[in-house]
Amino acid sequence: MNTFEEKTLKRETIFDGKIITLHVDEVELPNGKTSKREIVKHPGAVAIIMITDEDKLVLVEQYRKPLERSLFEIPAGKMENGESPETTAKRELEEETGYTCEKLNPIASFYTSPGFSDELVHLFKAENILKVENPKTEEDEFLRLHEVTFEQALTLIDEQKIYDAKTVYAIQYWKIQRALRK
Amino acid sequence: MNTFEEKTLKRETIFDGKIITLHVDEVELPNGKTSKREIVKHPGAVAIIMITDEDKLVLVEQYRKPLERSLFEIPAGKMENGESPETTAKRELEEETGYTCEKLNPIASFYTSPGFSDELVHLFKAENILKVENPKTEEDEFLRLHEVTFEQALTLIDEQKIYDAKTVYAIQYWKIQRALRK
Repeated sequence: MNTFEEKTLKRETIFDGKIITLHVDEVELPNGKTSKREIVKHPGAVAIIMITDEDKLVLVEQYRKPLERSLFEIPAGKMENGESPETTAKRELEEETGYTCEKLNPIASFYTSPGFSDELVHLFKAENILKVENPKTEEDEFLRLHEVTFEQALTLIDEQKIYDAKTVYAIQYWKIQRALRK
Repeated sequence: MNTFEEKTLKRETIFDGKIITLHVDEVELPNGKTSKREIVKHPGAVAIIMITDEDKLVLVEQYRKPLERSLFEIPAGKMENGESPETTAKRELEEETGYTCEKLNPIASFYTSPGFSDELVHLFKAENILKVENPKTEEDEFLRLHEVTFEQALTLIDEQKIYDAKTVYAIQYWKIQRALRK
């Protein structure tokens, strides 16, 4: 898998934050020239497709500072040190939605922006879901829960309220599952 | 769309690079507390689903420094100053694949990582494609072209050679289109 490998000549760490780390690497290209690469390291994240017994998708509305607006997204969260994706998924599901589930089926994994970041998202489907009596919620997290039908989800895409990769992917996945059921 | 808006109290620009800019914003949360947000600004990108007359998908294999490995991806590229997404798409298509097309159909747009970045990807499908005689290619870009069947694309996903959001989305889109044709 090392086609056109770029050898690191020098790494400069510009920023080491709470969520991301920024490096600028000087690299040697396959033709011997040098270039720079701006690299955002990220711990990775999980996201959960959860469909209720009423055939509704659970979405979380939250403000996204990089966009200066709020989005409707499937529940998600970044992985804490050493956590498995499944552990993160169960924790985030309870914190953000008050639901838990008996099983998490892996649906897909993907790098979100391989040109400048190593963020990898693991997408699961929650099976056999149930409400938690006194869910642990996270302080200072401002969320509004929504449960939407398939048709409502399509409208939210048209309105650009659903507008991020993992959620758009999830709706497409739901579309295929619904078609297969018929 | 301003649910749970976070007011910017202070912005510090940490890095202003060739591709990304990194800000750290101090924000006021809806409960009056303050917090920090790490924000990666990106000019946005386009990606193109191109299927040949032989029903094969055109993929570009390239090294991705943030991952220290190469991936197979649909043709893509970031938007240059003031370009429309369609202009970027036509330019990147020719530079990366040597193809052009008569029409670009918008398929989907999505933010790749709304938690920390404003990168927005516009996904098009190229229609009525044709080979360019002497395509303009970009210097210092190291790519290998592949044209793969649907079954080969699924194998590439299993092998984690196709492993990024836009390409995984594109394969799912292709799956639905194939099912609708039947």
